[in-house]
Amino acid sequence: MPTLRLALCQVNPTVGDLTGNAGLVRAWTRRAADSGAQLVLFPEMMLTGYPVEDLVFRRSFVAASQAALGRLAADLAADGLGELPVVVGYLDADGPPQISADAEPGRGTRNAAAVLHRGEVVATYFKHHLPNYGVFDEDRYFVPGDMLTVVRLGGVDVALTICEDLWQAGGPFAAARRAGVGLVVNINGSPYELNKDDLRLPVVRRRAAEAGATIAYVNMIGGQDELVFEGDSMIVAADGTVLTRAPQFVTHLLVHDVDLPTVDEVTPDPGTGAGGDGEQIAEGLRVVRRTLDGIPPSPTGPAAVGGVIEPVADEAEVWQALVLGLRDYVEKNRFPSVVLGLSGGIDSAVAAAIAVDALGGDRVIGVSMPSQHSSEHSRSDAADLAKRTGLDYRVEPIQPMVDTFLANLSLSGVAVENLQARVRGVILMALSNQEGPLVLTTGNKSELAVGYSTLYGDSVGGFNPIKDVWKTLVWRLAKWRNTEASRLGLTPPIPENSIGKPPSAELSPGQLDSDSLPDYDVLDPILIGYIDGDLGRDGLITSGHDPAVVDKVLRLVDTAEYKRRQSAPGTKISMKAFGRDRRLPITNRWREDG
Amino acid sequence: MPTLRLALCQVNPTVGDLTGNAGLVRAWTRRAADSGAQLVLFPEMMLTGYPVEDLVFRRSFVAASQAALGRLAADLAADGLGELPVVVGYLDADGPPQISADAEPGRGTRNAAAVLHRGEVVATYFKHHLPNYGVFDEDRYFVPGDMLTVVRLGGVDVALTICEDLWQAGGPFAAARRAGVGLVVNINGSPYELNKDDLRLPVVRRRAAEAGATIAYVNMIGGQDELVFEGDSMIVAADGTVLTRAPQFVTHLLVHDVDLPTVDEVTPDPGTGAGGDGEQIAEGLRVVRRTLDGIPPSPTGPAAVGGVIEPVADEAEVWQALVLGLRDYVEKNRFPSVVLGLSGGIDSAVAAAIAVDALGGDRVIGVSMPSQHSSEHSRSDAADLAKRTGLDYRVEPIQPMVDTFLANLSLSGVAVENLQARVRGVILMALSNQEGPLVLTTGNKSELAVGYSTLYGDSVGGFNPIKDVWKTLVWRLAKWRNTEASRLGLTPPIPENSIGKPPSAELSPGQLDSDSLPDYDVLDPILIGYIDGDLGRDGLITSGHDPAVVDKVLRLVDTAEYKRRQSAPGTKISMKAFGRDRRLPITNRWREDG
Repeated sequence: MPTLRLALCQVNPTVGDLTGNAGLVRAWTRRAADSGAQLVLFPEMMLTGYPVEDLVFRRSFVAASQAALGRLAADLAADGLGELPVVVGYLDADGPPQISADAEPGRGTRNAAAVLHRGEVVATYFKHHLPNYGVFDEDRYFVPGDMLTVVRLGGVDVALTICEDLWQAGGPFAAARRAGVGLVVNINGSPYELNKDDLRLPVVRRRAAEAGATIAYVNMIGGQDELVFEGDSMIVAADGTVLTRAPQFVTHLLVHDVDLPTVDEVTPDPGTGAGGDGEQIAEGLRVVRRTLDGIPPSPTGPAAVGGVIEPVADEAEVWQALVLGLRDYVEKNRFPSVVLGLSGGIDSAVAAAIAVDALGGDRVIGVSMPSQHSSEHSRSDAADLAKRTGLDYRVEPIQPMVDTFLANLSLSGVAVENLQARVRGVILMALSNQEGPLVLTTGNKSELAVGYSTLYGDSVGGFNPIKDVWKTLVWRLAKWRNTEASRLGLTPPIPENSIGKPPSAELSPGQLDSDSLPDYDVLDPILIGYIDGDLGRDGLITSGHDPAVVDKVLRLVDTAEYKRRQSAPGTKISMKAFGRDRRLPITNRWREDG
Repeated sequence: MPTLRLALCQVNPTVGDLTGNAGLVRAWTRRAADSGAQLVLFPEMMLTGYPVEDLVFRRSFVAASQAALGRLAADLAADGLGELPVVVGYLDADGPPQISADAEPGRGTRNAAAVLHRGEVVATYFKHHLPNYGVFDEDRYFVPGDMLTVVRLGGVDVALTICEDLWQAGGPFAAARRAGVGLVVNINGSPYELNKDDLRLPVVRRRAAEAGATIAYVNMIGGQDELVFEGDSMIVAADGTVLTRAPQFVTHLLVHDVDLPTVDEVTPDPGTGAGGDGEQIAEGLRVVRRTLDGIPPSPTGPAAVGGVIEPVADEAEVWQALVLGLRDYVEKNRFPSVVLGLSGGIDSAVAAAIAVDALGGDRVIGVSMPSQHSSEHSRSDAADLAKRTGLDYRVEPIQPMVDTFLANLSLSGVAVENLQARVRGVILMALSNQEGPLVLTTGNKSELAVGYSTLYGDSVGGFNPIKDVWKTLVWRLAKWRNTEASRLGLTPPIPENSIGKPPSAELSPGQLDSDSLPDYDVLDPILIGYIDGDLGRDGLITSGHDPAVVDKVLRLVDTAEYKRRQSAPGTKISMKAFGRDRRLPITNRWREDG
């Protein structure tokens, strides 16, 4: 039984940065070679980043990806790395884009994987199962592949698959069993989702059993607009044993020796077998075979053991996702720093703590913007937060500007309340224009769901770190982060007072969130049932919620769509979040309560 | 040869208003019956409105649509209209939503048509070709139908089809020829697009030839968020003759007598023929046949002639689309009025004229908000516009507020420029909160494309009537609208001075758009090539544009995505517009110029 040393490169590509991403492949292939690897794996769409969305429709972009792939193969050889086979995801096309007038049936743009060896592209594979739900639109972008690519190296047959191929039964994994392979490679751009790591391993195990083969699963890390990728790369044996598993949310080179059956030790199903290239059909897929010469059947030197890192618990996982999502949005868009308003409340405190963890205190500007309705504690709690986190703290009272507006316009009630939030928005945007920081907005998901915010006021900003975090989870995160700091002997970043006090917008005297909304302990379970659970009004009432409260909440959610349409992006931690993955009409007369 | 009197109901449904839409069906069926119609046709998704987007995933909504259909059939019978067959689009499902855990292969939610007769749903059809490009995501929402529904009435076989079925070759139209029918009904929710009427008729003719049958094409009118539907319903004979054609952008009852072959006069292809229900297969589709009794083979009384209205010319068509799109956004969302800033420039003048045409001058508030940089003509031109259109004119100088901000913050350069635009945004939103009008924003498509606007400043608003209108088209529309008024002996709404003067943001002394951007005569053709024509950098240069200008423009467009993500919706007149139909990453390092 041969042993292959696999190197899974859990890296962080940037969408559109073909040169930078190719540079990552070269650098990490060097590291893998130094570890004695015999096969190197990079994530889905490594060369282009993922998801590239409508960039797919630009022929110049497709051509640039194809050219970059050929150049990368040559560069690896020039680097002296040509003998080491490298699997890399990229954007390919074998016809005009499927939306164009000259489109050809069954051809078009492809979510592709290539094997690079000795300066050449020696094998390609096109993703077969295309996800088209939630945040995914791959039926819009890609034509599904109809082949199973099997590469023989070091005496082992290795099948290539991409991401969604793993999540659906049948297709390439079933075909791999029929064709008879020792290893299935699965390269991923699989976005983080609360508790997805609990789902991922069982799916990998199911597919390992289906293929009757070991699976090498490699996923990218990093933030891309609202998505964040967590890594969690792993190798799982055909019997379901986790051989090695990488940590989440960090770049990682996972190198591990895997014993794999030779081609003679694998029994293909009758009728497929190790026949001629392109002539067999397994599970409706054309089997394409390639053989790479010169790969020894075993690595040299001491055995490589990747180790098994267990995924972290909920709050830790969410926190890391939010920190990474914000950091990459700032870094990849080349902002020097961020600025946010500090109200002394829990939302801005948690957002600030995330920003400081992501960028360091010296790249975070926090602005206290008190009004006549601001309590003393709203200023002192903001100052306390600044001291704990070391952020750049400023105070800009808003009353002079508010008073000038009030002197020139006849305003009352909610118009006056919103005016204060909007003056704060103008101040933050002015600071952004003057000094360059990205403005962070800090509305939590519960607020956004029911529209409890001021359009062009507290919703002003280019990115919202907690856009997808329910209010009750905001509190849990704050407590977890403080506890974690205490455990490590560090200063807890979030003032206890910000965690403990009742939430208030402080836009009118004595105002509390609870004047307008149910308590968050009541509100959040209804929202979670409605949004995450797809429970309708009847389902919510059946699960024990007060019908009057349900009706009130659902009506708020259904009518707040126009506000959500004009809000900043923010890291998703749930594929049931608002935004691109949930597409509701603004003009809509339908209400759950009739 | 029997004659059928067809009634094509070109109506304006509202998304989610199941009760209101069913009411429309009842009222218009009454009108059709009064005209002696023998078959009544309503648009695609008539009962639910279109597009309903992710409402499809709410089981309660699907159930409500199904229940509404049954109730409508009963109500029509109770109205004494039961003998008249009615074709109506609705949302159906024959399984759980395809995104749910209990989804079943080949079953799920359906874009459906029903025939209602004698109080019952007597036939259904599920849309076969699902569009999944541009603004369409129907692969996300629906499972394609695999049947051809043929209803025999008055001696004629009538096949049912829905919208996209018409735009793709093969499928139901080819199956209709194989099955042998006299008439194909095609019900539509087909959004307006510049010059689409020029495309539509040739496609209808091609399909009529393919089916060897007359086609009755019925389309809705009305605005739905960014989409506007134009009607343009028609009946086209098998030989391509336009028998009747309805006007665009207005509700219309198109009643026309059509001579159609009997079932004996149509020769089905061998192997299909008029066999048993559900047992034949034509073009891969199961043929389902139903027969309606009691429909006479000819109408009574004088012949009904619908007439042929030719589509209107470009500027007239766009103007009507923008007026209808805005009116329906305001009315269907129940806003009492609209408010917009009047700068004296062309964009706000055209937006105001559209608003006055849509709602009347008494429901349009125009606010002049001069600063120290505002020229005298910016005030006088705004006042002139107000006088010409009869809108509610107000003046709110911004200098006191701007000065207070400047006294409290240290700002310079672009931060001061943007401050003025943001103070204006605060004033408009305050008026909206105080008095209830919807704020209109008035950035044209050229500005939005290159990011020449102030985020949370002039981009503040709930709807943008000219979001999809290139600057050069804004000027053409202004001239057309004024000429049209003069032709009719009315006051031209737009001051000549607003049309003639060089564009300026007036945010710093002597500022002109041309300081920052190429002339619009140069800019717009590049933008149109890049956005509408999908030309890349090389294609633009090959077509004769200056490479340096191309590079500058493309870089502006590619980096303005974050601004477009936070802008108000606006009526689309091009399916190549930004927004939901063009999905670009914000974080994206790829540039056309490398």
